[in-house]
Amino acid sequence: MAGNTFGKFFTLTTFGESHGKGLGGIVDGCPPGIKIEVDLIQKELNRRRPGQSKLVTPRDEKDRIEILSGVFEGLSTGTPIAFAVMNADQRSNDYNELSKVFRPSHADYTYNEKYGIRDHRGGGRSSARETLARVAGGAIAKMILEQLGVSITAYVSQIGTVAIQKEYTALDLSLTEENEIRCPDHEVAAKMVDEIKLAQVEGDSLGGIISCVIKGVPTGWGEPVFDRLQADFAKGMLSINAVKGFEYGSGFAGSAIKGSQHNDVFRPDPENPGKVLFETNRAGGILGGISSGQDIYFRTAFKPVATIMREQTTVDKEGNEVTIHPGGRHDVCVVPRAVPIVEAMAALVLVDHYLRFEAYQKKFI
Amino acid sequence: MAGNTFGKFFTLTTFGESHGKGLGGIVDGCPPGIKIEVDLIQKELNRRRPGQSKLVTPRDEKDRIEILSGVFEGLSTGTPIAFAVMNADQRSNDYNELSKVFRPSHADYTYNEKYGIRDHRGGGRSSARETLARVAGGAIAKMILEQLGVSITAYVSQIGTVAIQKEYTALDLSLTEENEIRCPDHEVAAKMVDEIKLAQVEGDSLGGIISCVIKGVPTGWGEPVFDRLQADFAKGMLSINAVKGFEYGSGFAGSAIKGSQHNDVFRPDPENPGKVLFETNRAGGILGGISSGQDIYFRTAFKPVATIMREQTTVDKEGNEVTIHPGGRHDVCVVPRAVPIVEAMAALVLVDHYLRFEAYQKKFI
Amino acid sequence: MAGNTFGKFFTLTTFGESHGKGLGGIVDGCPPGIKIEVDLIQKELNRRRPGQSKLVTPRDEKDRIEILSGVFEGLSTGTPIAFAVMNADQRSNDYNELSKVFRPSHADYTYNEKYGIRDHRGGGRSSARETLARVAGGAIAKMILEQLGVSITAYVSQIGTVAIQKEYTALDLSLTEENEIRCPDHEVAAKMVDEIKLAQVEGDSLGGIISCVIKGVPTGWGEPVFDRLQADFAKGMLSINAVKGFEYGSGFAGSAIKGSQHNDVFRPDPENPGKVLFETNRAGGILGGISSGQDIYFRTAFKPVATIMREQTTVDKEGNEVTIHPGGRHDVCVVPRAVPIVEAMAALVLVDHYLRFEAYQKKFI
Amino acid sequence: MAGNTFGKFFTLTTFGESHGKGLGGIVDGCPPGIKIEVDLIQKELNRRRPGQSKLVTPRDEKDRIEILSGVFEGLSTGTPIAFAVMNADQRSNDYNELSKVFRPSHADYTYNEKYGIRDHRGGGRSSARETLARVAGGAIAKMILEQLGVSITAYVSQIGTVAIQKEYTALDLSLTEENEIRCPDHEVAAKMVDEIKLAQVEGDSLGGIISCVIKGVPTGWGEPVFDRLQADFAKGMLSINAVKGFEYGSGFAGSAIKGSQHNDVFRPDPENPGKVLFETNRAGGILGGISSGQDIYFRTAFKPVATIMREQTTVDKEGNEVTIHPGGRHDVCVVPRAVPIVEAMAALVLVDHYLRFEAYQKKFI
Repeated sequence: MAGNTFGKFFTLTTFGESHGKGLGGIVDGCPPGIKIEVDLIQKELNRRRPGQSKLVTPRDEKDRIEILSGVFEGLSTGTPIAFAVMNADQRSNDYNELSKVFRPSHADYTYNEKYGIRDHRGGGRSSARETLARVAGGAIAKMILEQLGVSITAYVSQIGTVAIQKEYTALDLSLTEENEIRCPDHEVAAKMVDEIKLAQVEGDSLGGIISCVIKGVPTGWGEPVFDRLQADFAKGMLSINAVKGFEYGSGFAGSAIKGSQHNDVFRPDPENPGKVLFETNRAGGILGGISSGQDIYFRTAFKPVATIMREQTTVDKEGNEVTIHPGGRHDVCVVPRAVPIVEAMAALVLVDHYLRFEAYQKKFI
Repeated sequence: MAGNTFGKFFTLTTFGESHGKGLGGIVDGCPPGIKIEVDLIQKELNRRRPGQSKLVTPRDEKDRIEILSGVFEGLSTGTPIAFAVMNADQRSNDYNELSKVFRPSHADYTYNEKYGIRDHRGGGRSSARETLARVAGGAIAKMILEQLGVSITAYVSQIGTVAIQKEYTALDLSLTEENEIRCPDHEVAAKMVDEIKLAQVEGDSLGGIISCVIKGVPTGWGEPVFDRLQADFAKGMLSINAVKGFEYGSGFAGSAIKGSQHNDVFRPDPENPGKVLFETNRAGGILGGISSGQDIYFRTAFKPVATIMREQTTVDKEGNEVTIHPGGRHDVCVVPRAVPIVEAMAALVLVDHYLRFEAYQKKFI
Repeated sequence: MAGNTFGKFFTLTTFGESHGKGLGGIVDGCPPGIKIEVDLIQKELNRRRPGQSKLVTPRDEKDRIEILSGVFEGLSTGTPIAFAVMNADQRSNDYNELSKVFRPSHADYTYNEKYGIRDHRGGGRSSARETLARVAGGAIAKMILEQLGVSITAYVSQIGTVAIQKEYTALDLSLTEENEIRCPDHEVAAKMVDEIKLAQVEGDSLGGIISCVIKGVPTGWGEPVFDRLQADFAKGMLSINAVKGFEYGSGFAGSAIKGSQHNDVFRPDPENPGKVLFETNRAGGILGGISSGQDIYFRTAFKPVATIMREQTTVDKEGNEVTIHPGGRHDVCVVPRAVPIVEAMAALVLVDHYLRFEAYQKKFI
Repeated sequence: MAGNTFGKFFTLTTFGESHGKGLGGIVDGCPPGIKIEVDLIQKELNRRRPGQSKLVTPRDEKDRIEILSGVFEGLSTGTPIAFAVMNADQRSNDYNELSKVFRPSHADYTYNEKYGIRDHRGGGRSSARETLARVAGGAIAKMILEQLGVSITAYVSQIGTVAIQKEYTALDLSLTEENEIRCPDHEVAAKMVDEIKLAQVEGDSLGGIISCVIKGVPTGWGEPVFDRLQADFAKGMLSINAVKGFEYGSGFAGSAIKGSQHNDVFRPDPENPGKVLFETNRAGGILGGISSGQDIYFRTAFKPVATIMREQTTVDKEGNEVTIHPGGRHDVCVVPRAVPIVEAMAALVLVDHYLRFEAYQKKFI
């Protein structure tokens, strides 16, 4: 009931601190017979890894994944799949000063207040390094989804004040991974690079927005009334470090549109009698909490990185005002690295709902 | 694993269809000794009820709540509290035509696809009438929170294109219930009324945004890493009919701000050594998924009502194109009536996390 | 996290006190398209009802079940099925004296210690009347199992010191309901009747054992390692009032047998290549927590009724020693009435595991 | 929803196969500030370890535990505690023949039928080696219980046909660990040794019964109605490999006793006004599913080991009759080694209920 398990049927339980012995997790509920390719998990981890480009922190965390159970001769066996990434570097001296101060907009203070004790090294459990277990678990989920013809593509649609103005349908999402920003519009990506470089010079940091598009989900996934598909996506996204908002389909902008403009009109599907086509998709692929067969799309907002390369005033554990001078290497903007995290959480939600659908639908009717 | 239970420790399980025998729910995990006032529950239900003002539908659903268990001599006993509202009017003839068509932007189609069978009367389980069970459950949660000094105030901050421009801190929230819009800025409220009247004349509908402010939450509620407080708020809000987005603290706008501007600076709390004060609250009262002791605030976006008083083209169950002419009485804008629903879901989240905190914190350290 | 929900995928959440307004529950996760026959539910409730024969209490509780949701035109719709039985008689005066004393071997004392408050009328939530909601939920589960060819037959195999000596395979279980004891061996049943009559004359009470046989469960149900099928049966049985023990297959007696005698030998199934037959079934139909395709059988032990028609010394709430003189009508032995409760809990376990099996097995391999 | 997590608030999720890379688990919900002593966990693992005495298999599995997270400077931090034991020996050649046959009374056949694929090496996930993760998790639970003054002592009360005749109250349980049987009555223990030696000579195997006594549980733990304390103990015990039965308090024998003899009479507690003393404890320390403050005691039945040193006829995967000749080293009787497993599962249940009690009791009344 502490909160380290995600999902109801297909569950990921994670563990680990930034500078402890290692991080990892257990995936339970994976159907047997899924080809589990460690290389693909590693590839996803590498997408999240610091040091991928000059724009992000040059620390080389490596992060070699090891699967400990649940896979036999390359296939899932239906038993729990445990995995771990051991921390190469557990030096904690670098972080000794962090044990005594509460960094602004970090979780140091609230962890201390809640637990009364915390592993301060590199942020401990509150470090975004925790998300690597999500990416690994999500990679397994993606292998299941691939069998079902479901694909998830997230991309950076805004960095600071630089944003893609186009809808996802006007973009070529296959270009997303071709630049270090993970922005499929290369012109906008170039401006985002400039924005990041400028912030770097200023010792400042940036946030941004990640859009996510999911294709191939059949009609019927999602469990009314509380476990609507969008509710679980929202929960998954808001559980990611630094996320401040979630919207799907027409989102916040949809609040200003009138019903006559907002409704998506059905048309008969000439090729599938009894099925429908949609003229538009302001719904974002979900109606009444259930997937409609259209593309699902949503957007997730990230705040700027809390650690900045400037002196900041704050408070130490004894309640004194102190000034901190962040050293070390830190990302100016983590949003490009968060793209695989968004995809991973989306994949976990989808497999959970796929299995829940399979359990009790279309059997007696 | 169907999705009709909300919460992990303090749970609300709901049932009921729009035109079935009744709706209701079971609250499990309510601490014993809480004064359960039926009148207060009824009052909350009345806030959600149609027919409160000329602006909303004049149907008088009545909705008399009855408590069936778990309360003895006015106090909760720690056993499950069941409650029900019987449907006065189960006439289904009015809805016969709904059995054959899929209304645009309603859940008729996806329910049909998922379950293969549905109670079409008034939308059945997908009707927003389902939310009355949430309001009743939330009212019980509020009674617990009141004992803890926690208050929740939601208000309408946008209807269609008319929005409050001020931060909540510049508003007098005690004025919220004084107008039929539930907007604490009476000038803006008047404009919202005009917006609604205009849409009514046009046979159209409107959406909007509800803001929610929570005061009195102590430091420490929220369970990293997946059950962060904001993640559970997001899930709760996105589980409400018609909701398209959620943001807390600086939200989507925060993505465009630089770290140096976004960080909330700590100051020592002169009156509580070891505790901190915050100069700002862009965090929205939550750090690392844990309440910080500041006000919690978030915003929830509602799409316009799907039912409009205009002819619409759609598809029937046999796959033919048909035209529907909505009759009956329908809200032009449900956002004012959704204020107690937002509060109810927030209350359920908070009590759940309060109990989870109590279970394992501050005992051995 | 209070404990009023049973099951993980197919869940039953119950409510109600012995002399409150009513009792009932919500079944969530019922597949759509199941024919829900209220008469069959009522029939199961009648099997549990007091006053069925001269041997058990002549109170006529009636207990008319009403279904409130989740069923449309006779079929389950996949949405929650709520049901309630209203208490005809809420007179509490009869029970006023119970508010002040702790009856021996009842839960009065522990409820009082745990919750600090309790509905003392007729035992409140701790009354065995609570089990009617289980029987109703179990009846719905049985309707699903019937579609799958699974049958559950429980019978009384011991009352006090009178026991059936034969294995279930030597009995004609179809005779079970033909006598008021629900014992398929009519000779033994007659002796049990004598045992009960004797105890009645003595103002005493009796316990007994219920055996349960389940036929038709295919291979594969049950979730290693913690949610083994037998573990969930054990939990279900031990959650019933007055149950003190559970054993399946060879049970406690199996502990004294050597491995060479205990092992069930496989033989090839000549009609189904790759499948096996078993020469014996000391396993009780479950291997490694997973159903083997054989009959499942288990036994559940009930202690004697705590309320006896004799003066007993006990303690009141103020800590004084008092003497109680039980009045009213009470069962000498509830075991025959507990037969449908055992079946109901078994049915709930089985449907839960059926759905869990369906969710993730046999799809990718 | 696969079944690898135990507990609701304090959860243990386990992973691992007999001859995979390793086994381990994640404990979530551990309160912060608990001194986590790796040596004590190791000590518990050593109690379960094969090769402790001449009577049990001389394989030296070693099983060095490593804690991967959740502990900082020797104290739990409230974050998940992951641990692993790496398998020193993953040689699978020894087990190649097991891939093709279904061993009698093992789970080979049902795993194969359920999953369609299995790691056959040493039984894979169905191996009792899986229980080491329970012992490790249970050791952490014991550290919490120790802070609360709760102690758990299990002991062997029967091996084959040799049984202790005395009640636990007539035994000196502190002698339990002084012999290799873990039987506190040394005379009986000597006879058990003879029984085991005889079976060994015969190439046969034995089962037995483990009794468990829990002292120091305060009144109030256990959650009516489904999560009664005894129901969760039963589930925990029946989830252990080879367990066939569970009984608490008077157990199966209690079914034959009359109410007047079975009821435990309350007396006023002279030293604690409002509290009671009990003249007897046939209840087994639990009333209405809630701990009564008395000792809790229960018994768990184990079937004989399925692997015997004799030729057995069985079936291979192709459906042919084959004869198997078990080689290698196998326990004649695992019951002494199962004592720490019983204690571990009991500890997990107790901490779960302790935290659930803490969450919502005694706050408002």
